Amino acid sequence: MNGAQSLIRTLVDSGVDVCFSNPGTSEMHFVAALDSVPEMRGVLGLFEGVVTGAADGYARIAGKPAATLLHLGPGLGNGMANLHNARRAHTPIVNVIGDHATYHKKYDAPLESDIEAVAGSLRGWVRRSDSTADVGADAAAAVAAAQDPPGRVATLILPADISWGDGGVAVAPIPPRVAHSVAETTVKAAAEVLRTGEPVALLFGGPACREAGLRAVSRIATATGAKPLVETFPARLERGAELPDFERLGYLAEQAAYQLQGIKHVIVAGTKAPVSFFAYPGKPSELVPEGAQVHTLAELGQDVVGALEALADAVAPETEPVVRQAQRPELPSGPLTAQNWVEVIGALLPEGAIISDEANTSGVLLPAATAGAPRHDVLTLTGGAIGQGLPVATGAAVATPDRPVIALQADGSALYTISALWTQARENLNVTTVLLNNRAYAILRMELQRVGAEAGGPKANDLLDLARPDMDFVKIAEGMGVPATRATTAEELATQFQRAVAEPGPHLIDAHIPPLM
Amino acid sequence: MNGAQSLIRTLVDSGVDVCFSNPGTSEMHFVAALDSVPEMRGVLGLFEGVVTGAADGYARIAGKPAATLLHLGPGLGNGMANLHNARRAHTPIVNVIGDHATYHKKYDAPLESDIEAVAGSLRGWVRRSDSTADVGADAAAAVAAAQDPPGRVATLILPADISWGDGGVAVAPIPPRVAHSVAETTVKAAAEVLRTGEPVALLFGGPACREAGLRAVSRIATATGAKPLVETFPARLERGAELPDFERLGYLAEQAAYQLQGIKHVIVAGTKAPVSFFAYPGKPSELVPEGAQVHTLAELGQDVVGALEALADAVAPETEPVVRQAQRPELPSGPLTAQNWVEVIGALLPEGAIISDEANTSGVLLPAATAGAPRHDVLTLTGGAIGQGLPVATGAAVATPDRPVIALQADGSALYTISALWTQARENLNVTTVLLNNRAYAILRMELQRVGAEAGGPKANDLLDLARPDMDFVKIAEGMGVPATRATTAEELATQFQRAVAEPGPHLIDAHIPPLM
Repeated sequence: MNGAQSLIRTLVDSGVDVCFSNPGTSEMHFVAALDSVPEMRGVLGLFEGVVTGAADGYARIAGKPAATLLHLGPGLGNGMANLHNARRAHTPIVNVIGDHATYHKKYDAPLESDIEAVAGSLRGWVRRSDSTADVGADAAAAVAAAQDPPGRVATLILPADISWGDGGVAVAPIPPRVAHSVAETTVKAAAEVLRTGEPVALLFGGPACREAGLRAVSRIATATGAKPLVETFPARLERGAELPDFERLGYLAEQAAYQLQGIKHVIVAGTKAPVSFFAYPGKPSELVPEGAQVHTLAELGQDVVGALEALADAVAPETEPVVRQAQRPELPSGPLTAQNWVEVIGALLPEGAIISDEANTSGVLLPAATAGAPRHDVLTLTGGAIGQGLPVATGAAVATPDRPVIALQADGSALYTISALWTQARENLNVTTVLLNNRAYAILRMELQRVGAEAGGPKANDLLDLARPDMDFVKIAEGMGVPATRATTAEELATQFQRAVAEPGPHLIDAHIPPLM
Repeated sequence: MNGAQSLIRTLVDSGVDVCFSNPGTSEMHFVAALDSVPEMRGVLGLFEGVVTGAADGYARIAGKPAATLLHLGPGLGNGMANLHNARRAHTPIVNVIGDHATYHKKYDAPLESDIEAVAGSLRGWVRRSDSTADVGADAAAAVAAAQDPPGRVATLILPADISWGDGGVAVAPIPPRVAHSVAETTVKAAAEVLRTGEPVALLFGGPACREAGLRAVSRIATATGAKPLVETFPARLERGAELPDFERLGYLAEQAAYQLQGIKHVIVAGTKAPVSFFAYPGKPSELVPEGAQVHTLAELGQDVVGALEALADAVAPETEPVVRQAQRPELPSGPLTAQNWVEVIGALLPEGAIISDEANTSGVLLPAATAGAPRHDVLTLTGGAIGQGLPVATGAAVATPDRPVIALQADGSALYTISALWTQARENLNVTTVLLNNRAYAILRMELQRVGAEAGGPKANDLLDLARPDMDFVKIAEGMGVPATRATTAEELATQFQRAVAEPGPHLIDAHIPPLM
């Protein structure tokens, strides 16, 4: 067994049986070894940002890591933006990065690069395999590190000769560490805060955004009057009919300030005390109101849901969670707008859908329109690095071929990773992309105003304009093998969306909407 | 004047008047400041790999740096692969990377990232501006550092509050250092080697690949019988009628071994002793034949051309360079093949063309077909990180709007940076892309064999197959605003190529050719 074979065998034995791949010469033994381990599925991406984003989306839904296969430092570089998002989502990922043979590195050949420096910037786990006999153990350690709560990006650097060398040994899985429970005293302290009668916000995130956590939060909020708030960008948020439904903390500091007005205590669970996404001249970075106290119930990596349930049992022993009733918007009619396209989605969202949400400014009104839709998952842009939506949708669909995946994708961020469409076609994935084509970096138009920059100059505005030339996403999608249509009215979007969701395989709808502002 | 204004003013005063940009919120003051410095041209890219590759192509042709504008660590990450290529090309580039406001960094907001670690991996120049008053001086230092021979990637990190703060000061340019001359003794030593009568190869690169260097090399080779070889991947190689023409050292170690067979001395000028691009089991990394000696005439960063001219004056005082006669292939006919498409290019290459060459395996026969074409420049894939071709073509066309730019682009590497086409349309650039569509990662099929991997497994081969589904590059190009046609015969390619080159603005030809192997 060579090193590559021991690596893949160990990954599979550890539960990692999908590898999103963009290989080069230094990864050819890994590619060849795929045929010796039939359980490992290789999924090809034509760009590394697709590969890493797909691994993120896969793990958010599968609850276990996928591997990636990347080509030296430049391949890792191309994958960095979506690895950054995965890091912020605390998604477990196992990167396998091929490198030059050990004895070849000293020659500084053209692709020689500092993989450790780039991978290290992700603040995860990084190891270089330095003997073929150890590759299996390194792989098992990588999987365990990736899954160590709350989850992280683990990177294994695999020199070509270590990969092709003989003497590989497959290694048994290392059980991942279980999240530590929160101390009873911490739960009691939070309960005391809730009993003061002062205004309390309960800001939660991470694993608390799934059903058990939502139900505990609802009990606490119902019994105590605390204001529940979901973190701004949850990795995976369960929503819809028969689930408790809560506001997300606003992306804009102004929204968040409004939501937290008058609050005297912020209890945080599975997230951190809220800060502004960016700094703005003359505005505070911290969103907690002056004078308010922050109390940490559970940090990420602790048993967040257990802590919330314990708190609910303490302050709301008899209280049942309040859940959303099934309710959908009426199907709208007329030209598409930033207001009505979300009603089409709300009216037609299929049962068990997964929404990959990179609608950005176009999606501001989405949560209200889908709150009472059938139960679904929402995967959001956790790290702010755009170009996540299509790859995450791709990976989510690989993880659950039977659930419909809906990618809501802003035009400005679509082109970063547009070749995800090709992978969707290749793997015949059930992804319906609604491309929100407002022909502008609308969020930057807004940000240009918000940072206090002297806006309005023709050169500045031109740099935020995507209409010169217009992009034809129908052609782009078809060019990558994905059937596509264009919608300019609500009726067209409804008809096309229903058809796309009903048919197997990927579809794209180029939805022309005017900018929100 | 705020920090951003002082930065742009200083850049322009230092000769940097094009900024390839993909901005986000932290760069909005830079964007706003564009309107206060009319000389600075902002060119928008929809992905950072387009931005950095365009800056590389621009500087290779303009002979001076462009700036890039990138958004924190993830933006830099997306731009890394083409910055890697630029690093290997010794291209001067000034990256401006926006970061969070200084006082905001401690909050670890979602886009917080280790920009220094990632930028540092490029082994160039990195500085963080820490006061608005110093931004101008930092910018002047960045331009000088980028241009310090032989050229490098300089990265200036600009926190948002340093950018928006008042008190910026525009600073006068810092004249870049001039390349040091090579010592007379070194030239004499090389002359002695040439006079031994033993077989000598003269391997040259960098600035020696332009006319003056080529002429000196030709004189040396003609007078002494030394074997001239161009480095494998020159940043900019001048070729065509009335210029000396030399073989490039082969990409494959087997080719290089053949070229260097029997050589006893390798004189290197403006490049390093040759090494294999990758390591292969049982094959040496060093390409210099065993027992042969390497003599460095001039290192990159020294006056390489001056050294070659001095050597020519020493060993070939009376010898004239031998130049290629104008000669083009006949126009071929019949179905397109890997053999005949290059003849179409050779027959029709317009005067003064710039070729951005990422044809990879499809382009193996190109150099022979274009050797006697009208004088042109060839820009090659210096660092081996694919996805360079379309962005470099874009930047070259921005640098010289009057010269026709020809992008010869393999399909497997096109998708990494395909949105360069949109920027070409937006800027109405005279770029004709010939998309060599062989529906495979053909080079990896070959490499799978060469590394000794047990090839032929269905899963391995599937990962190198781009025909499931086929990509329709006509639709993809049209979707991005670039007129496109499809060619399946040599006659069609010829007709379409002539028309594309004759019409202003970008064009793409989806040339269907079978794989070389």
